[in-house]
Amino acid sequence: MHMRSLLLLASAALLIGAAPAKKKLLTPTDVVTSSPASAWKTIPADDLLVMDLANGGRVVVQLAPRFAPVHVANIRALARANYWDDASVYRVQDNYVAQLGQNESEKPWPAGVQPKPPEEYMRPTKGLAITPLGSPDAYAPNAGFADGWPVGYSPKAGWATLAHCYATVGVGRNLSPDTGTGGELYAIIGNATRHMDRNIAVVGRVIDGIEKLSSLPRGTEALGFYKDKAQYMPIAKLRLASQIAPGERPSYEYMDTGSASFAQYLHIRANRHDDFYIRPAGGVDLCNVQVPVRKKTA
Amino acid sequence: MHMRSLLLLASAALLIGAAPAKKKLLTPTDVVTSSPASAWKTIPADDLLVMDLANGGRVVVQLAPRFAPVHVANIRALARANYWDDASVYRVQDNYVAQLGQNESEKPWPAGVQPKPPEEYMRPTKGLAITPLGSPDAYAPNAGFADGWPVGYSPKAGWATLAHCYATVGVGRNLSPDTGTGGELYAIIGNATRHMDRNIAVVGRVIDGIEKLSSLPRGTEALGFYKDKAQYMPIAKLRLASQIAPGERPSYEYMDTGSASFAQYLHIRANRHDDFYIRPAGGVDLCNVQVPVRKKTA
Repeated sequence: MHMRSLLLLASAALLIGAAPAKKKLLTPTDVVTSSPASAWKTIPADDLLVMDLANGGRVVVQLAPRFAPVHVANIRALARANYWDDASVYRVQDNYVAQLGQNESEKPWPAGVQPKPPEEYMRPTKGLAITPLGSPDAYAPNAGFADGWPVGYSPKAGWATLAHCYATVGVGRNLSPDTGTGGELYAIIGNATRHMDRNIAVVGRVIDGIEKLSSLPRGTEALGFYKDKAQYMPIAKLRLASQIAPGERPSYEYMDTGSASFAQYLHIRANRHDDFYIRPAGGVDLCNVQVPVRKKTA
Repeated sequence: MHMRSLLLLASAALLIGAAPAKKKLLTPTDVVTSSPASAWKTIPADDLLVMDLANGGRVVVQLAPRFAPVHVANIRALARANYWDDASVYRVQDNYVAQLGQNESEKPWPAGVQPKPPEEYMRPTKGLAITPLGSPDAYAPNAGFADGWPVGYSPKAGWATLAHCYATVGVGRNLSPDTGTGGELYAIIGNATRHMDRNIAVVGRVIDGIEKLSSLPRGTEALGFYKDKAQYMPIAKLRLASQIAPGERPSYEYMDTGSASFAQYLHIRANRHDDFYIRPAGGVDLCNVQVPVRKKTA
């Protein structure tokens, strides 16, 4: 204990490298590192929302048009109209959400925004190739991964829903039947809030920079709203990657959840057996299997 | 959407109050508020660890002596010897842990500290009255609540383990068979890390002020260690409540997880049906049923 206590997460490989006599037990990171290029899919530039905060922090969101097409179309229209240029992060509630947008302003919707989108809280399983999680789920009959996304689903009823995991991005709304429009967004910054699944439109997930939101001061008003506007974190720019010049736009790829690499990654996540772990769980929660995403270099 | 998007959590009651014609549907908060005094248990002052950060933030930890008695005895001995008076939070890893202690110092253990405690990652179910969660769990054959704590357990094998939920506090250690001593502690500040269950000693949970840790800047070195000591958050004092003068010491109570109030609270957590929710999940994750804890006023 007088040595640095590592609480190794993915990096047991560092220590294993120092003990060459021992059989190498793969970590999730090892699987990611050794996966072939064919196991990865590039995220289209129109599916990337790039948010630059006034403090210089950048937060990148991958959109999910196959799950919430109308809300995602709204978000793209809002980005192209620079709707968020005077917006802010105005609510940060611990173990829950960071929320951003125009808050109570009456800013009119730009052209192309559908003010009353349909529900889009679920979609048909038909047309999705789902890799089952293989562990029980408390919130849906089944859980798994479709097209790179964590989902709850019912094979019997035929619905799938994007799961509210850490860093999931959804659309703020008022009481039902309002479904929100896309101008107000929240990101989960605490334990997975799966009870929100099938009750609100999920439109994506933060794939880079979630810590820029999760480390913001918590609001002290009810529900984590900031008391004074002076506490808001202004948004400098919120654009699609496709609005950024090709040489400057960031690019990312995610692991194909139908690939053999992902199957191996999932298995190891459920059975951690590297040097730090004594008793592999033999199971894993849907939200503890974060689909690997990495930056592409040009 | 031009109105404030509330994303109601526990406070749907506010709006329901404004709509008197409608039948009142209870929220988890309603259950807590209306519960009788008999549903609550006071936390002994020797089970409360009070950490004052150099920035004025206070973090209060409830210790779990029935689950990790030797580690908890060590922590009490360390507190009484003012072991942490020159300690710091030196690691903050996003969606994982905030870790505190002496880090790499060679500060000797004070008297009464057992330098090599037994494992204490599990304890027998015998002697525990467990309220079952009633939903499936990915990490243990069963999940539930024992003596105010979330646990995974095996009725067949007879073990119970404290679950790594948001705000859970455990003992940093090096590779097995080291079990840590109690001088280095971590708190979970992200999605529940249940794969750590049965692999490390859990000694308690933050019951007040977790946001003082979760909103700290993330460390930029591997595993979230701060790069420079200048980034450390020093600890001004880390004491047991029993070391603080009776008139100044904080006091807390938790809901008896064997009470009828807790059964009702658990049921509503699994079946959110207030105005914001359209589709109750019919199930809930162990870590999304935070045992209610509240400050006692003298």
